[in-house]
Amino acid sequence: MPEQASGRRGGRHARRAVRERKRESMLPNLTRGIPLTEPMSEEEIVRIDAASMWILEEVGVVFRDAVALDDWKRAGADVRGERVHLDRNMVRELIATIPAEITLHARDPQKSAKLGGPNSIFVPMTGAPYLRDLEDKRRAPTLDDLAMFHKLAHVAPALHSSAHHIVEPMDHPISQRHLRITYSSMKHSDKTFMGMTTSGRNAEDALDMCAILFGADFMETHPVVTGNCNGNSPLVWDETMLSAMRAFCRRNQPVLCSPFVLGGANTPASTAPAVAQLNAEALAALAYTQVIRKGAPAIYGHYLSTVSMRSGAPMAGTPEISLMNFMIGQMARHYGVPWRTSNTLGGAKTLDAQAGYESATTLMAVMMAGANYIWHSAGWNEAGMHCSVAKFVVDAEQCAMAHRMASGIRWDDFDEGLAAVKDIGPGGHFLGHPHTQANFSRAFFMPELFDNNNIEQWAAEGAKDTTARALEKAHRMLEEYEEPTLDPAIDEALRDFIARREREIPAADALNQEY
Amino acid sequence: MPEQASGRRGGRHARRAVRERKRESMLPNLTRGIPLTEPMSEEEIVRIDAASMWILEEVGVVFRDAVALDDWKRAGADVRGERVHLDRNMVRELIATIPAEITLHARDPQKSAKLGGPNSIFVPMTGAPYLRDLEDKRRAPTLDDLAMFHKLAHVAPALHSSAHHIVEPMDHPISQRHLRITYSSMKHSDKTFMGMTTSGRNAEDALDMCAILFGADFMETHPVVTGNCNGNSPLVWDETMLSAMRAFCRRNQPVLCSPFVLGGANTPASTAPAVAQLNAEALAALAYTQVIRKGAPAIYGHYLSTVSMRSGAPMAGTPEISLMNFMIGQMARHYGVPWRTSNTLGGAKTLDAQAGYESATTLMAVMMAGANYIWHSAGWNEAGMHCSVAKFVVDAEQCAMAHRMASGIRWDDFDEGLAAVKDIGPGGHFLGHPHTQANFSRAFFMPELFDNNNIEQWAAEGAKDTTARALEKAHRMLEEYEEPTLDPAIDEALRDFIARREREIPAADALNQEY
Repeated sequence: MPEQASGRRGGRHARRAVRERKRESMLPNLTRGIPLTEPMSEEEIVRIDAASMWILEEVGVVFRDAVALDDWKRAGADVRGERVHLDRNMVRELIATIPAEITLHARDPQKSAKLGGPNSIFVPMTGAPYLRDLEDKRRAPTLDDLAMFHKLAHVAPALHSSAHHIVEPMDHPISQRHLRITYSSMKHSDKTFMGMTTSGRNAEDALDMCAILFGADFMETHPVVTGNCNGNSPLVWDETMLSAMRAFCRRNQPVLCSPFVLGGANTPASTAPAVAQLNAEALAALAYTQVIRKGAPAIYGHYLSTVSMRSGAPMAGTPEISLMNFMIGQMARHYGVPWRTSNTLGGAKTLDAQAGYESATTLMAVMMAGANYIWHSAGWNEAGMHCSVAKFVVDAEQCAMAHRMASGIRWDDFDEGLAAVKDIGPGGHFLGHPHTQANFSRAFFMPELFDNNNIEQWAAEGAKDTTARALEKAHRMLEEYEEPTLDPAIDEALRDFIARREREIPAADALNQEY
Repeated sequence: MPEQASGRRGGRHARRAVRERKRESMLPNLTRGIPLTEPMSEEEIVRIDAASMWILEEVGVVFRDAVALDDWKRAGADVRGERVHLDRNMVRELIATIPAEITLHARDPQKSAKLGGPNSIFVPMTGAPYLRDLEDKRRAPTLDDLAMFHKLAHVAPALHSSAHHIVEPMDHPISQRHLRITYSSMKHSDKTFMGMTTSGRNAEDALDMCAILFGADFMETHPVVTGNCNGNSPLVWDETMLSAMRAFCRRNQPVLCSPFVLGGANTPASTAPAVAQLNAEALAALAYTQVIRKGAPAIYGHYLSTVSMRSGAPMAGTPEISLMNFMIGQMARHYGVPWRTSNTLGGAKTLDAQAGYESATTLMAVMMAGANYIWHSAGWNEAGMHCSVAKFVVDAEQCAMAHRMASGIRWDDFDEGLAAVKDIGPGGHFLGHPHTQANFSRAFFMPELFDNNNIEQWAAEGAKDTTARALEKAHRMLEEYEEPTLDPAIDEALRDFIARREREIPAADALNQEY
């Protein structure tokens, strides 16, 4: 039956064409092609390590969580009340089983991404209690707004994840919110995503939904979702975060072990000792992941700002944040663990010049630092109080530029380029040369959201600022958006799960509750 | 006579106090404390070098200037018409006598600055035909506007130079403008500055004025002024620039040998071959400086943008510009010559987010690239068509932050910082700790022009954007400005010189002529 056979081939070809189109719509994870910025000598790395180990042994870390304290006792740690003193040899032995590289599996296998070593991914911001919307109006977000951001993350080529609660959907009860957030990530994008860690039970729900989407067996051997657990600097890990951590580790899913650092307020007012403390905090949590499940993937994390000694406000894009990112990268590589940083942070209230300076400085610093899981890569503004639609699409384009930059130098057309120099000769111009024509689109990145026309042309086109242009782009992206097909049986199972859990979980909390 | 003796001591002390206050008002030149970003292997450096030498030998460089052609003939080059073919051994031998480091002497010796090797200086933008003024109004600049920018450059701690025609003073005849520009640089600041290179004769005038200020003998052995000479890419150097170059070299003053690169338009549309061409152009000019005067200081320069293949407009902050800066830094160090780059370029029409992203990306790239003479470090916007007062002061603060970042990690209080971690313990806070108090001001940079307050406080203070805050700062800087004392005899001699030259030079050109 040649028709059928041909039909099957056609089907395979068609599927491959679809796969290739999808792949084109997302850049592969960054594979680094430029050197790292490593300001510490080997001796200085050892000095930080020794200081962190001294902190773990002599000062200890508080685990405000009975289960964790029991776990640590069983593991042989010196537990005094809530304070756990960790011997350096024990810490080293524990963290040695963390995998150096992770492949994070996406619903579309073509969009799975590696992180660790030279591999990095860009993940949008999460957790904003407000948004600046498609009209740049600042207001409380809804589930529809969250879906919009998931769609933008899906369409933006340089974003490798739709994350989770990019904005907090205030129109849904807080106790049930994690279910709708997880469903929105899964439904509106087939890229990788994040799981909620607002409690151990919520984390279990998100992981159960992942099991419906990917299969529980698959999850046992494949990372499909990341969870973030923040430490309370200095030197405290609490029950909420630790119970979520246990949920993720038990299912073999990677946790970002992220001390929450406000440099100068909850660390010493000095770069190197602050890094020593942060490193101790991260090591304590990384070690605990291996107590929970030996060999589970885990990620060295941090949220990092410095604090203004004038106002107490967190600051971004400062020199010390760049330096600390360089240093933390060195420490994470010293331990052979993939690491997460915070990108494009800033305290501007609008997408003004401050936002641009802060975001670009941080983006460049984290690229040079070699971060693997580059979180908060799009939308962050106002110290995380709002996610801006306009900034989201500008940041996403900046990530594409950073991806290109960090991929390194192309040498494949070097000889043809030189031949063009000879062809054109002194005083000529290259625009019409065949080499230029052939390399037209790939030679030099052309940012779509930056206006480089002369002022007359810019004025004739309406004198639009960056925000106006970015919002137009966001509208276009949403028009272009096509929802990726989700197997109807899986979709139904997810909806059934949510319905059941929403019956079980009292919607006790008022809507729009502060979070 | 104890009173008199005491008075003398008082005088010395008073003078020292003034010197120290002045030094405090300018950061010393940056001495790099973080590693360089060097994406090319030694083999790849040699590959670019070989390609550039092939261009110099096989394609040749046009010198549109009879004197230069004669000079090259006498030096033994293969001159065919205007095209000079330079043997690689000759080029290597010539550039070998360029000093690897320069101390640029300022009128106030405390403000002299080193450049080359790990030493770098920040120099404001120059050449803008428009300004955005203290009310952010875009208009034609006057001599008073130029003086204002020289005052701002004088007050900004991270700027090491007042440069020259930051804006073009359109209220003065173009043929005489160089005299007033040079005087304004000298009069309003005692930092280093630049000399006009708009013609050989104009360069001579600027250098004659330097001789009045510093003494001709001093200049013979001390660099006191830099001149910029642009090449016309591809592979052309013209009479205007070469005659200015000769004026500077003959007086032993450093010239920036700066190919003017619009990547893709006047170079191949590919990063590595574009660098090979630019490198050949710079080498040709650097070699010529040594034909003019063996041992004269010279600086490897470039103006570098990429061109949009959609519109032909120059672009800034693109990935390829970052990569080319890294590569050019490696080439300059390969030849042992200090190098100049362009900082904070951008095409935004206002100080909006685009300006911030572009400027910060470029600033970070040139810091990582290790540029020594970091030109266009403040004020540049609209592809150089205007200098913005607001952007000038924001950029200047960004330079101070970059200076801090590139100075590297402090370790001097590491043990005290760790002791604070033990003192405070888990769950505490550091703001009241003596170590925090002692390190209050120097620990973490606090950008004055970035608002990190919460939105309510920001709104209560007038919801000012970056531009508004920066213009307020500019007003404050101008109020704080104190004109540095200029020896009245020198001042009179400079004024006499200008008066004589203005009698000799016909003010033939109409005012506000296009430039």
